[in-house]
Amino acid sequence: MNILIIGGGGLIGQKLAHKLIDKGELRGQEITGMVLADIVDPALPDAPFPISAASCDIGEPEAVAGLIDKDIDVIYLLAAVVSGQAESDFDIGMRVNLHGTLNVLERCRALETTPVVVFTSSMAVFGGDVPDPIEDWTIPNPQTSYGTQKAIGELLVNDYSRKGFIDGRAFRLPTISVRPGKPNLAASSFMSSIFREPLNGQEAICPVDRDFAHFYLSPRRCVDNLICGAEIDGDAMGTSRTMMMPGRTWTIGQMIDAMTAVAGSEPARLIRFEDQPEIQAIVKGWKFDLNPAKALSLGLSADESFEENIRYYLEDDLPRA
Amino acid sequence: MNILIIGGGGLIGQKLAHKLIDKGELRGQEITGMVLADIVDPALPDAPFPISAASCDIGEPEAVAGLIDKDIDVIYLLAAVVSGQAESDFDIGMRVNLHGTLNVLERCRALETTPVVVFTSSMAVFGGDVPDPIEDWTIPNPQTSYGTQKAIGELLVNDYSRKGFIDGRAFRLPTISVRPGKPNLAASSFMSSIFREPLNGQEAICPVDRDFAHFYLSPRRCVDNLICGAEIDGDAMGTSRTMMMPGRTWTIGQMIDAMTAVAGSEPARLIRFEDQPEIQAIVKGWKFDLNPAKALSLGLSADESFEENIRYYLEDDLPRA
Repeated sequence: MNILIIGGGGLIGQKLAHKLIDKGELRGQEITGMVLADIVDPALPDAPFPISAASCDIGEPEAVAGLIDKDIDVIYLLAAVVSGQAESDFDIGMRVNLHGTLNVLERCRALETTPVVVFTSSMAVFGGDVPDPIEDWTIPNPQTSYGTQKAIGELLVNDYSRKGFIDGRAFRLPTISVRPGKPNLAASSFMSSIFREPLNGQEAICPVDRDFAHFYLSPRRCVDNLICGAEIDGDAMGTSRTMMMPGRTWTIGQMIDAMTAVAGSEPARLIRFEDQPEIQAIVKGWKFDLNPAKALSLGLSADESFEENIRYYLEDDLPRA
Repeated sequence: MNILIIGGGGLIGQKLAHKLIDKGELRGQEITGMVLADIVDPALPDAPFPISAASCDIGEPEAVAGLIDKDIDVIYLLAAVVSGQAESDFDIGMRVNLHGTLNVLERCRALETTPVVVFTSSMAVFGGDVPDPIEDWTIPNPQTSYGTQKAIGELLVNDYSRKGFIDGRAFRLPTISVRPGKPNLAASSFMSSIFREPLNGQEAICPVDRDFAHFYLSPRRCVDNLICGAEIDGDAMGTSRTMMMPGRTWTIGQMIDAMTAVAGSEPARLIRFEDQPEIQAIVKGWKFDLNPAKALSLGLSADESFEENIRYYLEDDLPRA
């Protein structure tokens, strides 16, 4: 079992690599090799099997051909230009998110080895006027270039799977929280920083009210789902290889209460509520009422309560911070 | 008003060119030039303005750049590799239907002239398990490569429009009947030939029962809708530039009765019913219960009864046959 993680330098890619190394097997077979690829060489964990790093721009077909060969059994295609950048720089979004995905799929087709391909899509495929709740069969009507490119990736994964070129599966990821690291310019940055910074003894600003609701998943559970997602039998997915990855809807108030239940009352005192209309204008348009029925039926799961998300951050990420 | 019809050599492209020449204007402006492009030089109708033919493989970005320049106001993108061929020859379907569409859109973006682009999509975007009736907001879950490529084209037309690179609109065409010409190998061939051949005094075979229902539009009405579709105000389409083109559901029995009402009882006697299970297996999976509400609200229309379709064939096509 040889595994390639494209986007192996990112938060989820790194955690996935560590978890797979701990687990030692995937799809019932011992892991015998792993490659972590990213735009720059990713950090390499220790592993009891050959593991290597590769720098690869998936927008280049030749680079993809050099990356993927016949001995790769499972490909995680996590690499993407994120929403804000794909919107401000249309070319790079198209290059990585659309042509990069096509390059990976075309390389798989040329090899004729039908690898398992796990593609990470996004809730951003949904937009415009769609009814709540969003179901697996709700129409994607993306209102961003990122969402458009992800929706196209889903269609391609489905068709390449139907034709037997790959054994694909595409999961629309919830917003990941608690993310380790530093705040960034993303509108969603506060959805991790209002927990992460207080748990590190620092102040954080919450730009929305306590009743703001959104759809979340912890990094640890996301990795578990990506592993489970690779193990699903292709035929069990029916006529569509795309589904929401499970997550759960919580309000900011519920999440803060969960932090207090796990870590005591100190951290919550470090959160300062400060309305930021420009952030609110963006995030209040996001969908949060989603029903990930298909993935749940196939064995993927959500965090039980946000207390889990807090605990996972304390166990997995705080020691390194 | 300069118009480019890509796929100008096909049935709809030719009829559209003739109709636009008769009409003399589009979007309230006098037509001052027209180019008909196709993979081989299309036939050129007489016109009171400069009209030219171009042979162009839209799979070649350079050829597309040579075809589209800043003085083009409206582009009809009708060219496509059809369903059967896109399924049997994956490469050519991807080349023309996906990359060809991308090449046209990218050329428009580079010109920065925001032309109106009318893209013809297909009912083939629908597939798998979807509830009846199919609405404009039903999820496309294509089960063919052709349907996948058309669904991707729709997403691209929407995003390029949202970004202001084009002023696009995408219409999912019903099955066109009565088509002039000869029977072909398409599973849907009988949906025209059981009327066309008898109206020409020849026998035809109907491979399905009289109660087989499907969703149809006449070539003449399709052309009218493509003209109306180019004239819709972009903002009136809301967050999605894609919609079903109106059509109407009829059974074979209703259609034959309509032929008899228009042309007397002789033609119907030339139809021989002969079960063809391999044809039935394909066409009975096709969706026929569709609600083209959005296009109807924007001024597009369906044929009132199949008698219209028969009359249009007699008026428009029989004389040339």
